[in-house]
Amino acid sequence: MNISIKEKILSQLINAKGEPVSGQKLADELNISRTMIWKHLKSIEEDGYVIEAIKKKGYVLQSIPDIVTPEQIIPNLNTKQLGRTIDYYTTCESTQIIAADKAREGAPHGTVVIAEEQTDGRGRLDRSWNSTANKGIWMSVIIRPAISPQFAAQFTLVSAVAITQAIQEVTNLTPEIKWPNDILINGKKVTGILTELQADMDIVHSIIIGIGVNVNQELSAFEESIQKTATSLKIENGEEIDRSLLAAKILYYLEKYGDLYVENGFKPIKILWESHNCTIGKRIRATTLRETLEGVALGITNDGVLEIKLDSGEIRGVYSADIHLLGKN
Amino acid sequence: MNISIKEKILSQLINAKGEPVSGQKLADELNISRTMIWKHLKSIEEDGYVIEAIKKKGYVLQSIPDIVTPEQIIPNLNTKQLGRTIDYYTTCESTQIIAADKAREGAPHGTVVIAEEQTDGRGRLDRSWNSTANKGIWMSVIIRPAISPQFAAQFTLVSAVAITQAIQEVTNLTPEIKWPNDILINGKKVTGILTELQADMDIVHSIIIGIGVNVNQELSAFEESIQKTATSLKIENGEEIDRSLLAAKILYYLEKYGDLYVENGFKPIKILWESHNCTIGKRIRATTLRETLEGVALGITNDGVLEIKLDSGEIRGVYSADIHLLGKN
Repeated sequence: MNISIKEKILSQLINAKGEPVSGQKLADELNISRTMIWKHLKSIEEDGYVIEAIKKKGYVLQSIPDIVTPEQIIPNLNTKQLGRTIDYYTTCESTQIIAADKAREGAPHGTVVIAEEQTDGRGRLDRSWNSTANKGIWMSVIIRPAISPQFAAQFTLVSAVAITQAIQEVTNLTPEIKWPNDILINGKKVTGILTELQADMDIVHSIIIGIGVNVNQELSAFEESIQKTATSLKIENGEEIDRSLLAAKILYYLEKYGDLYVENGFKPIKILWESHNCTIGKRIRATTLRETLEGVALGITNDGVLEIKLDSGEIRGVYSADIHLLGKN
Repeated sequence: MNISIKEKILSQLINAKGEPVSGQKLADELNISRTMIWKHLKSIEEDGYVIEAIKKKGYVLQSIPDIVTPEQIIPNLNTKQLGRTIDYYTTCESTQIIAADKAREGAPHGTVVIAEEQTDGRGRLDRSWNSTANKGIWMSVIIRPAISPQFAAQFTLVSAVAITQAIQEVTNLTPEIKWPNDILINGKKVTGILTELQADMDIVHSIIIGIGVNVNQELSAFEESIQKTATSLKIENGEEIDRSLLAAKILYYLEKYGDLYVENGFKPIKILWESHNCTIGKRIRATTLRETLEGVALGITNDGVLEIKLDSGEIRGVYSADIHLLGKN
């Protein structure tokens, strides 16, 4: 675990839950001077934290800014590798582009790139993705599982399950997954997942999982054209969500289910995915690269492929498509 | 088709097959001065071509160097897109690394990177690949087929079939394919293929096919440790092979079978692959990322997966492995 001294001081302040933390004790424990402690505290204040110094008692954390810095995420993190290196931006074009570059340069498994705002966020098929400043989780996670590239697509379903579970834990909402990886709340889209692959035919070099979660936006943050189909956790839940806590939980479940997948294959993931899905049994329209199919979604195969029963009775497997739910069969 | 004036002049000299080509005619046709023609001829001579000037008749090409420059390959090329842009190096670390960078920077479908020598050529699983100067074809081809990444692995088999066909056409040899893509002549390896993938879960961005063919090496060019398992076309054939002609034929069949695959799926490729293969029906040992399997190779599935019947009777599908042929069952 690679935690800077600044992060360690902040961690202690957060964990003290409003009680004062002695400056001398911090200096002794971290083996640095009182002056250095004071400099780190100033730097923490510059990030937006409010710290009160109480004479002869120590420092009290009065308020936490709504930011997704490593200092905010790491104290919430219960992972071995995911999120242990976090590259934070107040604004960037796209976390996915930065992460893809870092992956090629050899960034370790679990490296996270996160931003308060993306100026050119992208979803599947190069569609633009609204990434309002300070209101969502816009992050990309680099993972390096030792698997064949044929199986990489299944990580899209692993990611969907992980994010669903994290949202359920942090809110009282019950998200549903539309195949392959759209997460819906009350039928509206709250999350986008973009999975990129660098591989040769024998082994995956890296998978870069781009995650966008609409967290604290008001409806007016969305363009009119998507106000009927998009939503945020706050809109559905009625209250603000701690974004850094949610980010930490997503990383936790991504590691947990990613490891489960690599060790035990797709079966346990399939069961989890099915338990959260809102696609199977529904009448759907699937638009693939080549054609549009309409029929009933029968289920997913052991490869994560969606099987559709067409009106002709023919059963077709779909690897990649946009799915439109037409209602129950 | 993007052919420089130098390439056009060289093309005319080659196509004249020993007859003189008039300098004035060249100048008129290409709409440049005699001085410019003369400058281009000097530059062609610097590449190793021997040109004789015959008074009042014109220029005669006396000999062609053994090089794989665009000027040598393109006149032999019968493709629409593959090899129409060739990036040539006398020496480089690895054509695959250059091609991967070019692919990310948006190089078009069909771009080729080729070198006379690689100082750090790589094969599958990051193994080192002997790339003797001026004796082989060391090239990487960028293709951008509109397919799902799940199907990209099949391009490994497309490549094997294309190279086999090209070798058969240029030599009198009968190469055989060991699953997935080792090309053997008389049981010894003559070709390595490395297929890299840049993709998201919906679509392939690029496939970079790294091709190494041992063409004109003597046996002494190979390290002692591989002299029993490696060979060159010249060793098997008894005579030198025109490398630029072979490179052009490989590109021709790669385009032909690549297009066939994208339009008609894997079935026709499977038939071609099977007709050249030396794996099916044999007793083999397959070493995968996780385990070693021994049994009889039953065949390949419609996904290109190798099916092995173990001694227990169990049938296992293998996506990626090193195959050791143990002899006929």
